[in-house]
Amino acid sequence: MSVSADAATSSADGSGTVHGYTSHKDSHLKRLRRIEGQVRGLHRMVDEDSYCIDVLTQVSAATRALQSFSLQLLEEHLAHCVVEAAQKGGPEAEEKVREASEAIARLVRS
Amino acid sequence: MSVSADAATSSADGSGTVHGYTSHKDSHLKRLRRIEGQVRGLHRMVDEDSYCIDVLTQVSAATRALQSFSLQLLEEHLAHCVVEAAQKGGPEAEEKVREASEAIARLVRS
Amino acid sequence: MSVSADAATSSADGSGTVHGYTSHKDSHLKRLRRIEGQVRGLHRMVDEDSYCIDVLTQVSAATRALQSFSLQLLEEHLAHCVVEAAQKGGPEAEEKVREASEAIARLVRS
Amino acid sequence: MSVSADAATSSADGSGTVHGYTSHKDSHLKRLRRIEGQVRGLHRMVDEDSYCIDVLTQVSAATRALQSFSLQLLEEHLAHCVVEAAQKGGPEAEEKVREASEAIARLVRS
Repeated sequence: MSVSADAATSSADGSGTVHGYTSHKDSHLKRLRRIEGQVRGLHRMVDEDSYCIDVLTQVSAATRALQSFSLQLLEEHLAHCVVEAAQKGGPEAEEKVREASEAIARLVRS
Repeated sequence: MSVSADAATSSADGSGTVHGYTSHKDSHLKRLRRIEGQVRGLHRMVDEDSYCIDVLTQVSAATRALQSFSLQLLEEHLAHCVVEAAQKGGPEAEEKVREASEAIARLVRS
Repeated sequence: MSVSADAATSSADGSGTVHGYTSHKDSHLKRLRRIEGQVRGLHRMVDEDSYCIDVLTQVSAATRALQSFSLQLLEEHLAHCVVEAAQKGGPEAEEKVREASEAIARLVRS
Repeated sequence: MSVSADAATSSADGSGTVHGYTSHKDSHLKRLRRIEGQVRGLHRMVDEDSYCIDVLTQVSAATRALQSFSLQLLEEHLAHCVVEAAQKGGPEAEEKVREASEAIARLVRS
């Protein structure tokens, strides 16, 4: 379990991992609970034979919530992991950029 | 059990509501349970400080699953609600087309 | 010049093909000329070494314009071709719904 | 007009600007010409009353081509402009990350 606060990719004592998003972990966890609740709400709507269009509206809302979560995660990843790798330079920097670009492509295409 | 009636085909005995997706209801409910599990998995990943890119990959998978669910729902809606409204004709047909088009726009833009 | 007929409403004099979008043809053609101009503008920006982010902003604008064009085309297709096929009923109606659903899936995923 | 070739944000002699994408400029320009041709093809299809679904298929292809162009531009921007700003550090690095994140959000939502 990570307790440190800075943005280093490993914690000072080596016992935990700190990623770009660690400093906003609580807000991320709350956000995901809300999205889980939205999906559970979709289940209830289908179970209660809600009108198709109303179900679709809620699916769009849940999709947008997931997308918005991923955009924040990505920004934190760029601001911490990618920036740090860039400062170290070398092949790790290139690897981080390539990896982030692939994640962006998956987001854009999903 | 649904009690509404207006926007839907009436069920055989008049006691319930049948929408485009009703015949696949069980498979839809299972699908939504799986997506709920994916979102719960995301919560666990963030809680356990998983690597950002791995979290993002799972967000893309959940987003695609929601999208794929909505595409099936929409196809069933067109095949049942829109086709039936078209057969009745008049303003209800136009209204159903407009409503479906707005739902499609929300999907495309989300 | 179109000569086909099957999937379309026949024109008044039987000499041409009328699709869902025919009545807005002029506005569609103008719209596409504008999008072509946007893409040519992108070419100029890259040629003049504009800043990457400014190029990306214009790519997003062109993408949204294409998307918005396709959403209107799709609405007209539903309102005309799909509604008419539904009124005839039978396998052609099912085929039109399936075909429209596949087009929607391509839009959502692109 | 830029003539230098490295990936620095200003050229050695200060006379031109070199962005992340400069080294692939020719391939980008060719790519944009092809997309312009795709949009012109769409104009022709609508003008010749092509079937709606066929037009939609080509719109999806053009949209994907624009998206794929923007993903490459973005990767080059991260690999050059963002990495260099990160190496300098300070507020410029933060600004570049924020700016790139906004561009990514526009891509994901368009």
